[in-house]
Amino acid sequence: MTTHFWSGQKPRHSGVRPSATAHAKTGGAHIRPLAGPRPASHQVPAPLHHSEPASDRLRIIPLGGLEEVGRNMTIFEYGNDIVIVDIGLQFPEEDMPGIDYIIPDINYLKGKEKNIRGVIITHGHYDHIGGVPHLVGKLGNPIIYTAPLTAGIMRKRQEEFRDAPPLRIVLVNGQTKVPLGQNFVFEPFHINHNISDAFGVALSTPLGLVLHTGDFKFDFTPVNDEPADLHRIAMFGTKNVLALMSESTDAESPGHQTSEKVVGEELDRIIAAAPGRIIIGTFASLLTRAQQIMTLAEKNNRKVFIDGRSMINNIEIAHELGYMKYKPGTIIEEGEVRKIPDESLIVVCTGAQGEKNAVLMRIANEEHRFLKIKQNDTIIFSSSVVPGNERTVQSLKDTLVRHGARVVHSKMMDVHAGGHAKQEDLKLMMRLTKPKYFIPIHGNRFMLQSHADLAISIGIPKENIFIADNGQVMEFDKKGARLTTEYVPSEYVMVDGLGVGDVSNVVLRDRRVMAEDGMLVVIATIEKKTGRLIGNPDLISRGFIYMKENKELVEKTRMRAKKLLRDGDPRSPAFAEFIKNKIRNDLGQFLYTQTKRRPMVLPVIIEV
Amino acid sequence: MTTHFWSGQKPRHSGVRPSATAHAKTGGAHIRPLAGPRPASHQVPAPLHHSEPASDRLRIIPLGGLEEVGRNMTIFEYGNDIVIVDIGLQFPEEDMPGIDYIIPDINYLKGKEKNIRGVIITHGHYDHIGGVPHLVGKLGNPIIYTAPLTAGIMRKRQEEFRDAPPLRIVLVNGQTKVPLGQNFVFEPFHINHNISDAFGVALSTPLGLVLHTGDFKFDFTPVNDEPADLHRIAMFGTKNVLALMSESTDAESPGHQTSEKVVGEELDRIIAAAPGRIIIGTFASLLTRAQQIMTLAEKNNRKVFIDGRSMINNIEIAHELGYMKYKPGTIIEEGEVRKIPDESLIVVCTGAQGEKNAVLMRIANEEHRFLKIKQNDTIIFSSSVVPGNERTVQSLKDTLVRHGARVVHSKMMDVHAGGHAKQEDLKLMMRLTKPKYFIPIHGNRFMLQSHADLAISIGIPKENIFIADNGQVMEFDKKGARLTTEYVPSEYVMVDGLGVGDVSNVVLRDRRVMAEDGMLVVIATIEKKTGRLIGNPDLISRGFIYMKENKELVEKTRMRAKKLLRDGDPRSPAFAEFIKNKIRNDLGQFLYTQTKRRPMVLPVIIEV
Repeated sequence: MTTHFWSGQKPRHSGVRPSATAHAKTGGAHIRPLAGPRPASHQVPAPLHHSEPASDRLRIIPLGGLEEVGRNMTIFEYGNDIVIVDIGLQFPEEDMPGIDYIIPDINYLKGKEKNIRGVIITHGHYDHIGGVPHLVGKLGNPIIYTAPLTAGIMRKRQEEFRDAPPLRIVLVNGQTKVPLGQNFVFEPFHINHNISDAFGVALSTPLGLVLHTGDFKFDFTPVNDEPADLHRIAMFGTKNVLALMSESTDAESPGHQTSEKVVGEELDRIIAAAPGRIIIGTFASLLTRAQQIMTLAEKNNRKVFIDGRSMINNIEIAHELGYMKYKPGTIIEEGEVRKIPDESLIVVCTGAQGEKNAVLMRIANEEHRFLKIKQNDTIIFSSSVVPGNERTVQSLKDTLVRHGARVVHSKMMDVHAGGHAKQEDLKLMMRLTKPKYFIPIHGNRFMLQSHADLAISIGIPKENIFIADNGQVMEFDKKGARLTTEYVPSEYVMVDGLGVGDVSNVVLRDRRVMAEDGMLVVIATIEKKTGRLIGNPDLISRGFIYMKENKELVEKTRMRAKKLLRDGDPRSPAFAEFIKNKIRNDLGQFLYTQTKRRPMVLPVIIEV
Repeated sequence: MTTHFWSGQKPRHSGVRPSATAHAKTGGAHIRPLAGPRPASHQVPAPLHHSEPASDRLRIIPLGGLEEVGRNMTIFEYGNDIVIVDIGLQFPEEDMPGIDYIIPDINYLKGKEKNIRGVIITHGHYDHIGGVPHLVGKLGNPIIYTAPLTAGIMRKRQEEFRDAPPLRIVLVNGQTKVPLGQNFVFEPFHINHNISDAFGVALSTPLGLVLHTGDFKFDFTPVNDEPADLHRIAMFGTKNVLALMSESTDAESPGHQTSEKVVGEELDRIIAAAPGRIIIGTFASLLTRAQQIMTLAEKNNRKVFIDGRSMINNIEIAHELGYMKYKPGTIIEEGEVRKIPDESLIVVCTGAQGEKNAVLMRIANEEHRFLKIKQNDTIIFSSSVVPGNERTVQSLKDTLVRHGARVVHSKMMDVHAGGHAKQEDLKLMMRLTKPKYFIPIHGNRFMLQSHADLAISIGIPKENIFIADNGQVMEFDKKGARLTTEYVPSEYVMVDGLGVGDVSNVVLRDRRVMAEDGMLVVIATIEKKTGRLIGNPDLISRGFIYMKENKELVEKTRMRAKKLLRDGDPRSPAFAEFIKNKIRNDLGQFLYTQTKRRPMVLPVIIEV
């Protein structure tokens, strides 16, 4: 498959943005528009590649993560220096059937690779590291600055991509100060998240300090981690912070985020009271939770069997690096599961989102090699439900309950704590850092707006708050700062199987049409010399109607096609295209009248 | 289009049920299995049509609504008498692209039409009335017993279906007692819901009283309605209730359902404080909410413009019948909207679920004829988010906020009250009615189980609680009652455009495959006499790859197809089928290796 980073993909947001994009229905659910409309003031064309060096000014450009949750990537540019924070992936929207995931569009960086002084990766979750294997080579394999656990997870993932170069990683910790080119100095600061080694980014620039929180929460009683470094964050606040970029994933939720300790206590109660086996479904990357489960298993004299390749990988990496602590013998192998009585066993597995091939789904559907649900099982969903997965998770719970298991989920008890700051936490971050400019990041527009409203509520002037779009350039100089009307490309780059960026909107549109109402191929054989139609046209349909049970309609359609094919003048050179259009339009209309469905009509004319 | 009520559709649940059904990915989201597995004890084959009269025993058969939310329909059968409660529709699952909705399978009633003594419709929501236009004719157009508002809504809807017979409706109210055949007497009892005129069903049978709640909540301070008739319900409780069938939609939620009065107070505060125009998105059928808005508009000196055909119809019907009260002039017409200042206007519209063509979506996407979002607009989502619609609603909110509107939704404030009893309400219903047997209805298996757990918690013996599947027969006689292993057909009957039940699983599977990875048509022309391939095979692909940008792969595929076509012996009679299979398998495998995608491969052989 060819790939098309630099050319193939038509930029979704560059310069002028369409005011409203077509949207389609797929899978029975109504679908969001690919991109919402923009206020008219943004509709100013701008050069695609702003190639003059940005002297004396700082440009901050979010390439992803600002109109969505996922695909986080931010560019900082000053003079000839570029620093990148995170290169994530995003899971596809409902109107993108067959797409595996989406990565950022890096066209803006084309020709600027030599300016990239480093890539900072804040933590090891896919929405922050997922684009690396696809993109790092194209960026000239710059040095990656990150923490040890993140590095371990990234290296492991890189192995899955044969064509990707080995990563060049420099490890950082809370003491590190890294000069990046002439204009930037980077230092990480410790925050809490639901994976170890997550940090925020403090970036000194000639115009002042810019803080980027990454994903964070303040956990005053974290598990197997230090509390966020409030003193350091407060210290930044005394240094005239130019701008705070703070994550908005949970900006709609009032209050404080739950501490991991509370989750631990609740899990402990449930584990202690469970009559039989316990199966805990969670995210593979939720390593603080995995640690809790190990500790509680040891406390409650249970053994832990871990199932799910990604989770095993992550736990092994974290354990090797000393980020997870458990006794030898706590984790058991597949062969030992049978020997452990149910009341001494905890199974930890992936699939709490109802992912099709993940372990919990396979157990529920009796497709697992050796685990089957029993009457006395307690199944804990120690995770939130990612928006869009609600029905799948509902159905998974149905199946588990049907087998007689008891199901506990986070709406019923505190068996999950999010990794993201809620409103009071977000306000604390703003109060501690006292930024001049505030830029809400990571989240749908609605979340960014909620976060901006919080900022206004604590006194940050509205005009100093920038709610940007993906690709929209923010500029800082001695005179001040502004959200410009310049957009760099920030198109969705879709990964489908081995293809990266080769699934165009045309291909997607076709998939949607065929998903809705199927398709009908009309094949006509024509004698080349005379243009005479040979025999009757053949019809093949898939996903439209069951032809054997709709013979009358099929025959009517065939006769209609035949008539169309005879009506035209077959010797005219434009005949083939003309007649194909005619077949498409006429049959399409006819079939809609007959069935109220709009299958894709594909005319094929064979000349012999 | 032909329809296939009595024959075409392969029953999904009849007799033996598959232990786990295949499931597929569509639209980027992971998909739930169509049906979960059953415990082994249920796997006993049973006759499809249990045709002997059920003498001396009461059979209760849920045809829908027990493994899902929607498609409610229950059969009560005693001797030669059949009573039906509700005939609803259900919205499609994510793995049913293109399907409009799903109605119950009534194959069990084939040949028993003459026994149907009546259809009782509990209220006017689509999950209780939606199947009527499609099914009532096939049931012999039996008499429908319902309340005036429900009747009005049903009659209006019936007009949209040209082939459906006029409904034969008998109106009932709280004083009515209707003998239905030799064995049943029906009386409605008043409960609260978020549409007026909803009632529960008390059905006297030779074995005792059976209560069916319909959808209900207890609202002690309802708006424009009487509180649920607690005295009547308590009176039933003194008469040895044989069985209570009670709805489970909100059985997972602790506490009491919010009263409409609370919603009214919150809406009043928001309306009073709003600086400009107010746009309220809600369900078209949520008529108690519509009434609140009228009242509050009058109180706050605002005019109301209603947009959305279904909502206007419902309000007109309710108003004509005296169920809604507002002053002349409160509701304004389209032409007047321009003349009303923003601070004196409320727009009430459909589309709070992000439905593609509904009003709110059109306003957001700037596709509305004359309404556009402005800076000072307050937009209230006075509705819950139906599971599966989360991402669409999120995106709708994004778009509205982008235009500068303020958005208020029910997670932020009490701007919506559900229509369904929560746990304390459900327990009150059980305590008041004191049933011997308890049958949780309306909801996914998980909800039914939660409801059963509540019943156990208040002392109903576990063995007297029946968690049934759709189609599973419950039998009551003098010796007792049991959940049998007999299943009657309860297949999904899918409505797609004008076709009812004609979209088979084959058609759906094809839609899913094409949605995932598109398709490739391989057309080969062969000389009939010699079997010689004429020219090269033609390839057409849609939704797979963009052919123009993948010429190399296209050529390789074409050459591979050519080789396959030459390898076989074209004069053998089975050649065509054989070579088609070979093309499908070989090219399928080849394309997967090259792209990790699995398009549908459609070989077409033209003989000339």
